[in-house]
Amino acid sequence: MDGESGAQKEVGITEKKETNFSEWYQQVVLKSGLGDYSPVKGCMVYMPWGYAIWEEIRNYLDKRLKALGHKNAYFPLFIPESLLKKEEAHFEGFTAEVAWVNTEGEERLAIRPTSETIMYNMFSNWIKSYRDLPLLLNQWNNVVRWETKSTRLFLRTREFLWQEGHTVHATKDEADREVFTILELYKSLLSDLLAIPVLSGLKSEGEKFAGALYTATIEALMPDGKALQAGTSHNLGQNFAKAFDIVYLDKEQKKNYVWQTSWGVSTRLIGAVVMVHGDDKGLVLPPYVAPVQVVIVPIYYSEVQKKGITEACEKIRELLEGKGIRVEADLRDDKTPGWKFNEWELKGVPIRVEIGPRDLEASSVVLYRRDTSEKLSVKVEDVGRRVPELLDIVHTSMLTKAEIFLRSHITNVNDYTTFQRVLEEKGGFLKAPWCAEADCESIIKNETGATVRLIPLQDKEPQSPSCLRCGRTAMVTAYFARSY
Amino acid sequence: MDGESGAQKEVGITEKKETNFSEWYQQVVLKSGLGDYSPVKGCMVYMPWGYAIWEEIRNYLDKRLKALGHKNAYFPLFIPESLLKKEEAHFEGFTAEVAWVNTEGEERLAIRPTSETIMYNMFSNWIKSYRDLPLLLNQWNNVVRWETKSTRLFLRTREFLWQEGHTVHATKDEADREVFTILELYKSLLSDLLAIPVLSGLKSEGEKFAGALYTATIEALMPDGKALQAGTSHNLGQNFAKAFDIVYLDKEQKKNYVWQTSWGVSTRLIGAVVMVHGDDKGLVLPPYVAPVQVVIVPIYYSEVQKKGITEACEKIRELLEGKGIRVEADLRDDKTPGWKFNEWELKGVPIRVEIGPRDLEASSVVLYRRDTSEKLSVKVEDVGRRVPELLDIVHTSMLTKAEIFLRSHITNVNDYTTFQRVLEEKGGFLKAPWCAEADCESIIKNETGATVRLIPLQDKEPQSPSCLRCGRTAMVTAYFARSY
Repeated sequence: MDGESGAQKEVGITEKKETNFSEWYQQVVLKSGLGDYSPVKGCMVYMPWGYAIWEEIRNYLDKRLKALGHKNAYFPLFIPESLLKKEEAHFEGFTAEVAWVNTEGEERLAIRPTSETIMYNMFSNWIKSYRDLPLLLNQWNNVVRWETKSTRLFLRTREFLWQEGHTVHATKDEADREVFTILELYKSLLSDLLAIPVLSGLKSEGEKFAGALYTATIEALMPDGKALQAGTSHNLGQNFAKAFDIVYLDKEQKKNYVWQTSWGVSTRLIGAVVMVHGDDKGLVLPPYVAPVQVVIVPIYYSEVQKKGITEACEKIRELLEGKGIRVEADLRDDKTPGWKFNEWELKGVPIRVEIGPRDLEASSVVLYRRDTSEKLSVKVEDVGRRVPELLDIVHTSMLTKAEIFLRSHITNVNDYTTFQRVLEEKGGFLKAPWCAEADCESIIKNETGATVRLIPLQDKEPQSPSCLRCGRTAMVTAYFARSY
Repeated sequence: MDGESGAQKEVGITEKKETNFSEWYQQVVLKSGLGDYSPVKGCMVYMPWGYAIWEEIRNYLDKRLKALGHKNAYFPLFIPESLLKKEEAHFEGFTAEVAWVNTEGEERLAIRPTSETIMYNMFSNWIKSYRDLPLLLNQWNNVVRWETKSTRLFLRTREFLWQEGHTVHATKDEADREVFTILELYKSLLSDLLAIPVLSGLKSEGEKFAGALYTATIEALMPDGKALQAGTSHNLGQNFAKAFDIVYLDKEQKKNYVWQTSWGVSTRLIGAVVMVHGDDKGLVLPPYVAPVQVVIVPIYYSEVQKKGITEACEKIRELLEGKGIRVEADLRDDKTPGWKFNEWELKGVPIRVEIGPRDLEASSVVLYRRDTSEKLSVKVEDVGRRVPELLDIVHTSMLTKAEIFLRSHITNVNDYTTFQRVLEEKGGFLKAPWCAEADCESIIKNETGATVRLIPLQDKEPQSPSCLRCGRTAMVTAYFARSY
């Protein structure tokens, strides 16, 4: 048992995703064993099932970041106030949500909300010459942002886990390339591992990272019509280089400020997986990120049957394990098959293999798909081929379903009345001509709750000449939405 | 480049291990790129080379812990004061070194020095029945202990990385077994991965973990004659169960308090590797934990030679990579072979493969052993067999050397004069008859700086009838030493 109480598990999800999304979400997270509330206000416990998903995300990204030349390191949890203040816009952006440590007589220490300032102070010592560039570092750690809004497990907590990449380059061009290499990596993480399609583009000036030149983002759409920022990649320009005096000598012995990027994804991705794929029976995990991809459940009615069927289960388990599949045989004999079905459905395991007396006799097994509830009978000799195939099919099918939802929730609007109506009635992304002015942005936000989620990199020419809200000349096409 | 400044790298280690151990240690850590000081007093930066060693340690342990049924989870960084205080002895043991967070109006929060109290508060909610046991959890995280002594990189810092395992059992017997299963795992981590032999046994009452029933420990010996506690495994008895009301219903529906264990190893192991194996040229890494096990360095004197030799290097790299060896070909052409030799020796890579024009002609390569400086010529066709063999040989040879040092630094003493003399002149472990009384223990500590490192599990019958210091009846044999 993984820390869920037996009592909790016996009751399934009692809320409907369709009718009470927020309650449904909380039930799925708690009852599937992903996470739990803690006695510390705003902080959560990452339960084994949730943490195992994070490990899969980490494995996926870590391998690819290393292949691109990034190295992992670890920097202090604490940031002296004087360092945090060095880049003005950065400090302004974070100061409201910083937690401070009591240090008698010593300088006040912030608990890192993000690590730019503590890292870049070191970078200024390390970087002297063009030979020291590029510097490509990444950290897997915990960060703290003292939220005052109510806690939502995985989505809004005072402490969360993430990775933060920080790179240093000789030229803007190189930094630009890094920003978009990472954005592409994040896109593939979302679509290829999590089966979540995203839109990508640039943040507005009002929504960019505090201290950045510009921020690139990927945005996913949740079933309640709200957008979720799933990952961001910032070109920091020379802003921090100037604040921290990070300078290199080029081949001509000339001093130059470096160009920097930073980028991150966090455990909120687990929340996105729950929302996008879950259903009224609980979690539905995309196959490649599922900690257990296949669960085998024996069905027998007598001790005589038990022996043969258990052996058959073990054989299938070994076979699938040999194929590199994460598989478990649930051989507990104090639980009924029905109880086990519910349990693993709640936990979202993509494929269930059932083996009963008739299956054994017919040398076949039943494969059950969590995402569609479909069942199919497969010959034992074909299991080693059919199960991996089915995992691929389930992934593609889940991604396609989410893709259709996303595409059908992008609405072109040119006027503010339609904008407000669509936002209320349908939600999703509203693609609209926009003046790109800060005052207009905040009026729209205050009046509707929607923000500019992104400005696309391609096809950003406005579809209509004037801004949807203020009527000034439209400069870009922007995607608006309410968001998490 | 991994964040080390070019300037640093050009100067090798200038202190001798033999004559100025402490300065030598600091130089090796800084110059090999393992770690660096940070602008936060007492906190360090884990540089890529040091962090990569931690990743190897983590991979080794994580796989084995999971195979034993442990699952990873993550609990909050913050512990409300009221929880930290619940187990009295535990709080007393940690209170002096706790860092506190400012929380306006809310309860004061400790930054975790260890996670017993925040975890066990949750356990009391989760555990209801014998069916919920055993609960086997582990965390990889950062902890903070507000040290007032001076910082030593990897050995004494205010924040450090570790794993902390926490398990819950129905009986004392099961908890005992867990404690020693983990102790054995830690022993094999030290000997099989880090090539460091250890002594193991129990801590005295004065040295056990705050709140534990007993603490089992593994202790390594450093070249300066001081012991280093390398890992501990605690049976917490029912102390925390009673403080946190962690109770389960057994099969007879009777309520019982649970039995608990906790255990951990930290990044100080990296410091142990530096001290035990390093030499006057820098770091010497045991092969299985080395982030790069083999480095290939081409030697050429003309562009014509360069092409063929570079190709040969690439081939050897692919061959060794195919065997699962962590290998790098250092093909930088702005560095001389000699510069590269120094660099990789400083960083402690176990085997260097050199390929020069004469080697190419003879279809052979030169293998260089970092630990002994021996060179041997090997036919290209044998490289795929000889290199893995040599990695095994290097490991065994490093372990044996450390083993001989450890064994030759265990001295039997029965009287206090000899005890003090050996401690001054030779150091190491002093095996002595001891009364096992707290007052005697603190007198010895105050007078000599030596503490009881462990009481062995076997052969603990005292070798002499009276306590080495106080003359009362000796109850046990104890191993004393000065320590890190």
